[in-house]
Amino acid sequence: MTPFPASEFAARTARAQAGMAAAGLSALLLTTEPEIRYYTGFLTRFWESPSRPWFVVVPAEGPPIAVIPAIGAHLMGQSWIRDIRTFAAPAPDESALALLALTLREEVPPGGLIGLPDGAETHVRLPFSDWAVLQDLTLRRRFVGDGGLVARLRQAKSAAEIDRIATACAIAGRAFARVPEIAGAGVPLDQVFRGFQGLCLGEGADWVAYLAGGAGPGGYGDVISPATARPLAPGDVLMLDTGVVHGGYYSDFDRNFSVGPPGAEVAEAHETLIAASRAAKAIAHPGTTHAELFHAMHSLTSGGTPGANTGRIGHGLGMELTEGPSLLPWETASLRPGMVITLEPVIELSPGRIMVHEEVIAIEEDGARWLSNPAPPQIAVLS
Amino acid sequence: MTPFPASEFAARTARAQAGMAAAGLSALLLTTEPEIRYYTGFLTRFWESPSRPWFVVVPAEGPPIAVIPAIGAHLMGQSWIRDIRTFAAPAPDESALALLALTLREEVPPGGLIGLPDGAETHVRLPFSDWAVLQDLTLRRRFVGDGGLVARLRQAKSAAEIDRIATACAIAGRAFARVPEIAGAGVPLDQVFRGFQGLCLGEGADWVAYLAGGAGPGGYGDVISPATARPLAPGDVLMLDTGVVHGGYYSDFDRNFSVGPPGAEVAEAHETLIAASRAAKAIAHPGTTHAELFHAMHSLTSGGTPGANTGRIGHGLGMELTEGPSLLPWETASLRPGMVITLEPVIELSPGRIMVHEEVIAIEEDGARWLSNPAPPQIAVLS
Repeated sequence: MTPFPASEFAARTARAQAGMAAAGLSALLLTTEPEIRYYTGFLTRFWESPSRPWFVVVPAEGPPIAVIPAIGAHLMGQSWIRDIRTFAAPAPDESALALLALTLREEVPPGGLIGLPDGAETHVRLPFSDWAVLQDLTLRRRFVGDGGLVARLRQAKSAAEIDRIATACAIAGRAFARVPEIAGAGVPLDQVFRGFQGLCLGEGADWVAYLAGGAGPGGYGDVISPATARPLAPGDVLMLDTGVVHGGYYSDFDRNFSVGPPGAEVAEAHETLIAASRAAKAIAHPGTTHAELFHAMHSLTSGGTPGANTGRIGHGLGMELTEGPSLLPWETASLRPGMVITLEPVIELSPGRIMVHEEVIAIEEDGARWLSNPAPPQIAVLS
Repeated sequence: MTPFPASEFAARTARAQAGMAAAGLSALLLTTEPEIRYYTGFLTRFWESPSRPWFVVVPAEGPPIAVIPAIGAHLMGQSWIRDIRTFAAPAPDESALALLALTLREEVPPGGLIGLPDGAETHVRLPFSDWAVLQDLTLRRRFVGDGGLVARLRQAKSAAEIDRIATACAIAGRAFARVPEIAGAGVPLDQVFRGFQGLCLGEGADWVAYLAGGAGPGGYGDVISPATARPLAPGDVLMLDTGVVHGGYYSDFDRNFSVGPPGAEVAEAHETLIAASRAAKAIAHPGTTHAELFHAMHSLTSGGTPGANTGRIGHGLGMELTEGPSLLPWETASLRPGMVITLEPVIELSPGRIMVHEEVIAIEEDGARWLSNPAPPQIAVLS
């Protein structure tokens, strides 16, 4: 796959710097995978290893500066970043923090503010004690939250980003269409999970970052469990919810299957879930509030508790499986062009027995476009 | 797979509480996936979603307390944890932090210390601003680092844990043996990566959490890159380094392959790498220092820079792809029974062209046992 051009990252950096100027920030300090990748293009699964810190500093002007372990220099050197400062890691001393602090002292005047990504979906990827050391070493500069600046900018995707998400969704869609090849009565759920991940890879996923789901008679207990070895049985509803990765961008949607003919309750619940996601898609355009999307779905599915403990019924999607915004009844913020949103209505059929459906849409100037190929009202049937 | 019995988690908790008492900690606050899973058994891929905080409090006495989003209650309810307190999430207010603070105030007297896992491989999984709010809400309790207590306890694995790692390694080993089915001259590297992940699933991996590698004429540039679409060519050395997951435990080792007959330099380098890992395994027993393992390998491979920018040549392995300890020349700490260690010697053949080999051993009372089936000195050849 062709990497994004440097102009993509330069545009992101310029938008961040405009926001930083408005907020009085002299620099941004990035410490986590999606934040660093968003401004550099640095894509590696090596973040699975928690042993080394990684830093990128976005200065008030000019391109970002990478302050990273030497093991990453070769790969970062293939990005648009030219100022790459490396430290030995792991190491017994504070040389990594010292190099970072030196960089921050160069870019931020005494008394200046260093912004850290803040709000939902963020954390500072540093050991507890190192964080105190870094504050000491930066001398008269102060760390403050960025007020959600980085998250807000990431919410509005470029056309190039949406293309990757659409491709990831298409890959997952083709894999879902092939579920009858690997699942049916008598097949243990863990074997279904393995087989489904194989289908995703076969259809072109770079990797399968997420697979959860459930199976049970007439519904399932939750949507986050790993698979058990219990064989599928007639009357089960099987749900698979996957995040496949293509070029660093995620899909996130699910599909439900009835093992054998569905009962009336399951068939009707599925039709309702499909109607709910379609109702939300129909009103989705720039200006629609997140709460309006919530209510468009919840008004159709509200037999159970709101969100049936999921706490929201949809969210942003892109470089991570879940991003802001959250579709919640009190969210008065509005959709903006370029947002990619999952619509994830849930029905609680009885206490501890739910069905969840999920689709993906992109917000365009005049409405919304499906990125997932939307499921039909009739639940798919496995033999 | 059978879950660990409650006695496994009770023993872990008792060991933590002994360490807490010695360190004067009234509670431990856990916020990350491996820490929470270690004390509860809570296993889900849902951590891929960064949108919600999760907390477990280990009190001075008695079982841990889960303070988690409602979406996790069903799955946590299947663990040995009985005290499960849930909050709505995502939410616009501080109710999650308030519930956590209430729990901490119950368990920790005013003036008491709350330990946070600290040191390499740790972070506090909370947004920047939430961390300040939590400190305010806990009223006269102080957060301190745990001095590496949690990490140190996790380093010595139980027999049940080592069994899972051994199974993960066996799965990866069977997949490596089948690489000739999916790789050879003319096959694009990204297709090799997809095919290899499929083999891992086919051999029984729950999921493939990590795959990196490289391919290039006579060696590769780094060990953390994702795949490109470049086809393998005769003379290439292909390296695949994978972390497959079985029951929540990882493998982590690699294999090298020569596309067509290897040149003398590559053949010799491979033999040297194998000799290095065997030399380290031969001296590995309780009491051997991490530095001694380092030097056992490095004395054979030291044509290049120490560690050729990887910064260490081996590390702990278990619930994460990489854990402490690190095999570094200055690490005077010693191996202990139950440690699982990767041996990862590297040779720099020329600037920017390296070969890396990796095996996994478990430290037993009287020596070390291979968990990976060790590679022979002769590099495997693909047609």
